[in-house]
Amino acid sequence: MIKDIEVKKKLSSRWFEYLQSEICKQFELLEKKVSKKSKVFKKRIWHKKNKEEGGGISYILENGNIFDKVGVNKSTVSGKFQKKFRSKIMGAEKNGQYWASGISVVAHMKNPKMPAVHFNTRFIVTSKSWFGGGIDVTQSFKDKKERKELNKKLFRICKINNKNYQNYRKWCDKYFFLPHRNEIRGIGGLFFDYERDNWENNFNFVRNVGIGFLDITKKIILKKINVKWNTKDKEKQFLKRGRYVEFNLLYDRGTKFGLNSGGNVEAIFMSLPPNAKWK
Amino acid sequence: MIKDIEVKKKLSSRWFEYLQSEICKQFELLEKKVSKKSKVFKKRIWHKKNKEEGGGISYILENGNIFDKVGVNKSTVSGKFQKKFRSKIMGAEKNGQYWASGISVVAHMKNPKMPAVHFNTRFIVTSKSWFGGGIDVTQSFKDKKERKELNKKLFRICKINNKNYQNYRKWCDKYFFLPHRNEIRGIGGLFFDYERDNWENNFNFVRNVGIGFLDITKKIILKKINVKWNTKDKEKQFLKRGRYVEFNLLYDRGTKFGLNSGGNVEAIFMSLPPNAKWK
Repeated sequence: MIKDIEVKKKLSSRWFEYLQSEICKQFELLEKKVSKKSKVFKKRIWHKKNKEEGGGISYILENGNIFDKVGVNKSTVSGKFQKKFRSKIMGAEKNGQYWASGISVVAHMKNPKMPAVHFNTRFIVTSKSWFGGGIDVTQSFKDKKERKELNKKLFRICKINNKNYQNYRKWCDKYFFLPHRNEIRGIGGLFFDYERDNWENNFNFVRNVGIGFLDITKKIILKKINVKWNTKDKEKQFLKRGRYVEFNLLYDRGTKFGLNSGGNVEAIFMSLPPNAKWK
Repeated sequence: MIKDIEVKKKLSSRWFEYLQSEICKQFELLEKKVSKKSKVFKKRIWHKKNKEEGGGISYILENGNIFDKVGVNKSTVSGKFQKKFRSKIMGAEKNGQYWASGISVVAHMKNPKMPAVHFNTRFIVTSKSWFGGGIDVTQSFKDKKERKELNKKLFRICKINNKNYQNYRKWCDKYFFLPHRNEIRGIGGLFFDYERDNWENNFNFVRNVGIGFLDITKKIILKKINVKWNTKDKEKQFLKRGRYVEFNLLYDRGTKFGLNSGGNVEAIFMSLPPNAKWK
């Protein structure tokens, strides 16, 4: 059993880095599948103002054959939260110190019949330490079968790690909710946080969620790669993307965490769609 | 001197109603100037869940010859703020009761060389009562002359009402600011709040600001009605609209007030552009 927190930090941040490169590689392969004239990820490196407090690497691919925009971010940052924000982070109440490493992915698809997918896992250290993360899927068009398969896959990932999927699923529905519209953003998924009972088991779970996300996304894409769509479908997707923007700017904790921890604006807003509409 | 608060409520809300109809009329005339095949405003009426707490009327014109989207809202609402929100509103700390009437206008132009314009005035009553409001202009393309003329006009409106424009101008720059980008949203304008020293004078000022907004907007439009633009210019406008969305959802007090006072989502989000992009 690993007890040294520095070892835990190193293992988790290395995993996120490996997963980032794997996701980018696989997504580029999917792009190539459609056409040899395919786009590749652009790499951006950023540091916090105080370079000793870390930074991140973000990969963005835009105007692809499959992805309108997909961002794959990895960051490892540390520092001290401002006083007013401390009470909102477990274990940061006293001195506000934190260390955090994580990966997040948001993919907005060209084909409006394909859902947008979002994934994130993180390891956070304050006076306490824990894993958190999730996967969620946002359809512009209802597809019950897709939803069912998602649930099945996520259920299995949870089961082999002795985690209760029903709880995480409920948490996801509750989290990705727009109260001002009384509307759920997506079709659900998995949302977990404050996982701190057994580090090895939780780390394993986090790795399974990461690989699971890649599997799920590839399957969703391959299944719909030849599904036809028209401009009217695209309009519907643009309006759904408006909801995505509303959620991310009004409620998302990740956005708030990013803006409150001196994160890189471009990297934080990577989650925003390339465009959105409002009626 | 008017002392009765009920009379003040009636006079102010009637003014906002009159101004709303005047703005809609003038904007439709501008649309007709370009082509006889012009769009007209669509009227939407909404009520709070509890109908006794009021509601509003919003007029929206979309896909016009001049306006991509323009909304002209008037609402008169009352009620009790939720406890956690009370400390944020002057005079509502104790019992949370409020009454508010106001007009707000946001115009997103078809021609990207024309700036977006925003205007709002309101009369709010808690255990205290005051006027607030403002005008601000957001250019996608720098136009120093336009900015200069705006300042000149606003300066004059303030001067004849014994108001200090410099203070309001600074307040505007400070308010319409995106801290996460260290960027001012617009080119400035006028922002005032908590005007409660002399009701008659303040009411007069509010009326002058309203008529002034209409004058300013008409001049801006007529000056640029024939200015050429291309798709590249439009792209730039879409990105600027992204900033508009960020501000409105992350920081705008009006949006927060609306969402916290049981306002109508469509009416609150009228301020959002019809579309926006992010790089």
